[in-house]
Amino acid sequence: MLIVHVDVQVKMDSIDAFLVATKKNARESLKEPGIVRFDVLQNRDDPTRFVLNEVYRADEDPARHKETEHYKTWRAAVEDMMARPRGSVKYSNCFPADLDW
Amino acid sequence: MLIVHVDVQVKMDSIDAFLVATKKNARESLKEPGIVRFDVLQNRDDPTRFVLNEVYRADEDPARHKETEHYKTWRAAVEDMMARPRGSVKYSNCFPADLDW
Repeated sequence: MLIVHVDVQVKMDSIDAFLVATKKNARESLKEPGIVRFDVLQNRDDPTRFVLNEVYRADEDPARHKETEHYKTWRAAVEDMMARPRGSVKYSNCFPADLDW
Repeated sequence: MLIVHVDVQVKMDSIDAFLVATKKNARESLKEPGIVRFDVLQNRDDPTRFVLNEVYRADEDPARHKETEHYKTWRAAVEDMMARPRGSVKYSNCFPADLDW
């Protein structure tokens, strides 16, 4: 199991449009067999900052995700909304057990 | 709904003991009515770094959590394992809908 936290900062006037595009991508992503969760979180201290909590069953699944139409549509839609390049950090799951996600 | 990401760095020789104490705390925390998830994630690039993904139903629930015996036991157990002070960031939930967590 692989968890990726994608760190996003958008332009102030792009918050609403980013959320529309990102929720749509999250809904479609959850239909992928390799995706367990796709949470969208907004920083309480800075509403232009978001974390995407992407939970994949296996290490190969992020590459499959990036081949999907919904991902490509999202990437193009948000390209001009970014205040800076996105970052990401990879985690292994320790708890709960993989089967309990 | 309030999501708290707790950023932890432990001493290299404390990784195993930290995981034992933290999984025990996570299991007990999930019994609290105000806690929806309590995930423990280990950084892939630096195994001394962890994120606790704590998902609370309401803003008051973290304070209630900190009054529990299992939290106090955990805090005391890990005190000498920290490589630096813990940090945390608070998030609001955007997706999925609160009821779908």
